[in-house]
Amino acid sequence: MTRFALNQWTTRYWPLPDLVAGCRAEGVRGVGLWREPVAEYGLARTAKLCADAGLNVTSLCRGGFFQHDDAIADNRRAIDEAAALGAPVLVLVSGGLPDGSRDLDGARDRVKDALAELAPYAGARGVTLAIEALHPMYCSDRCVVATLDQALDLAAPHPPEQVGVCVDTYHLWWDPRAYDGIARAGREGRIALFQVADWVTPLPEGVLTGRGLLGDGCVELRRFREAVDAAGYTGPIEAEIFNDELWATPGPDVLRLLLDRFAAHVS
Amino acid sequence: MTRFALNQWTTRYWPLPDLVAGCRAEGVRGVGLWREPVAEYGLARTAKLCADAGLNVTSLCRGGFFQHDDAIADNRRAIDEAAALGAPVLVLVSGGLPDGSRDLDGARDRVKDALAELAPYAGARGVTLAIEALHPMYCSDRCVVATLDQALDLAAPHPPEQVGVCVDTYHLWWDPRAYDGIARAGREGRIALFQVADWVTPLPEGVLTGRGLLGDGCVELRRFREAVDAAGYTGPIEAEIFNDELWATPGPDVLRLLLDRFAAHVS
Repeated sequence: MTRFALNQWTTRYWPLPDLVAGCRAEGVRGVGLWREPVAEYGLARTAKLCADAGLNVTSLCRGGFFQHDDAIADNRRAIDEAAALGAPVLVLVSGGLPDGSRDLDGARDRVKDALAELAPYAGARGVTLAIEALHPMYCSDRCVVATLDQALDLAAPHPPEQVGVCVDTYHLWWDPRAYDGIARAGREGRIALFQVADWVTPLPEGVLTGRGLLGDGCVELRRFREAVDAAGYTGPIEAEIFNDELWATPGPDVLRLLLDRFAAHVS
Repeated sequence: MTRFALNQWTTRYWPLPDLVAGCRAEGVRGVGLWREPVAEYGLARTAKLCADAGLNVTSLCRGGFFQHDDAIADNRRAIDEAAALGAPVLVLVSGGLPDGSRDLDGARDRVKDALAELAPYAGARGVTLAIEALHPMYCSDRCVVATLDQALDLAAPHPPEQVGVCVDTYHLWWDPRAYDGIARAGREGRIALFQVADWVTPLPEGVLTGRGLLGDGCVELRRFREAVDAAGYTGPIEAEIFNDELWATPGPDVLRLLLDRFAAHVS
């Protein structure tokens, strides 16, 4: 339970002060925040709100989207924001193909180049960039990084305190190499964050908002958690679930449900 | 053009005699058939229809679905049907997890065991089982084989004339190891079939019927064809596109469109 953290997008419409109070009421110690609601509430104000409540900001979502022209400048701002929040990790969703492009190798090279520019900047501010491999169904429009091995290869040129990976069960569960990849990530000191969600079908149109509540799907969540632990990871475990039904449910109810399911299926 | 083959599901509602006549009219030499419409028209009658038109049956879709209790018996029947049609290849969609199961390793072991039972049976009838890696978004409900490497590992214990792989651009395009996998498949003599479709977003609900017409999406189709050729494959190239809009279009129009797009983007 001390490792459970609420990713803000799971309770997307819960106002930040209510979310912080709600976490405090349930004894939750960590929260993964998103840039948009943080900007809306105010960066310094959010940092103070969390600090006053004794709530750790476990990560900031999200940097990346390297297909855009202003990506480097925008990612520097995201790193600054993570540092201001005391978040040790900025999650990177690396972006898809530019409109009309078929140059997948080129898009992947751009991620590599962007990391080379951003890694020292992040390191100097005490922030680790966590490359997140997204499920391959997002490869064209959201993230050309599709496997944990690929994320680790991209991280390899950089010191682990500058560039690591985010292990997310929703994105990785299908991969025959998932557990080997987690062991490798541990050996290389790269596990910067662990996120959990379950896999359910049928997928909704657009495949964005159909993640499963912990225990509702087919992912061996506890096995993943044990694998990440065995690889030496001792950090927070963020529940990050994009789900229309959860979004329509009051925040306190979602949080209690998550804590129950976390105890039953993850911890 | 001599390598182009029409997969029957691309023109799903085109009656078999019309499809065969339409292929003949356009000079198409090969057709990949599906078990259900073949059964409806009659197995021997279908074989005669194609033979009389000089049309090669390039493959039969599909065996597999090893999560079902009667899978072995049903796959033997599918092999018999492929042999009766003169189809050199039976495509295997290996099946997902049984209802309520989270045992992904178990499901993958079941594929391995089924291949051991079926491979000699297929070989004795001149049919090659083509393991198809499906896109990972189908892993839970349709196919626990998600990468070309995994398909090749499953094929490895068997002679290549008994068990090969189906290389399908729609399922494999995102994989950072796709081209290495194709080269490996060539070295190991395993490429039993090559299928083409394009990747487009947004994906529709259920993600089954949103495949892109050749050239409409982001897949480097010609690069795939050249890679398969470089790996020594000289067989047919089946256009297999599940797409609601194509299904609503008359068969002759779809076929002409496919031939144009094939010339522009594949051959």
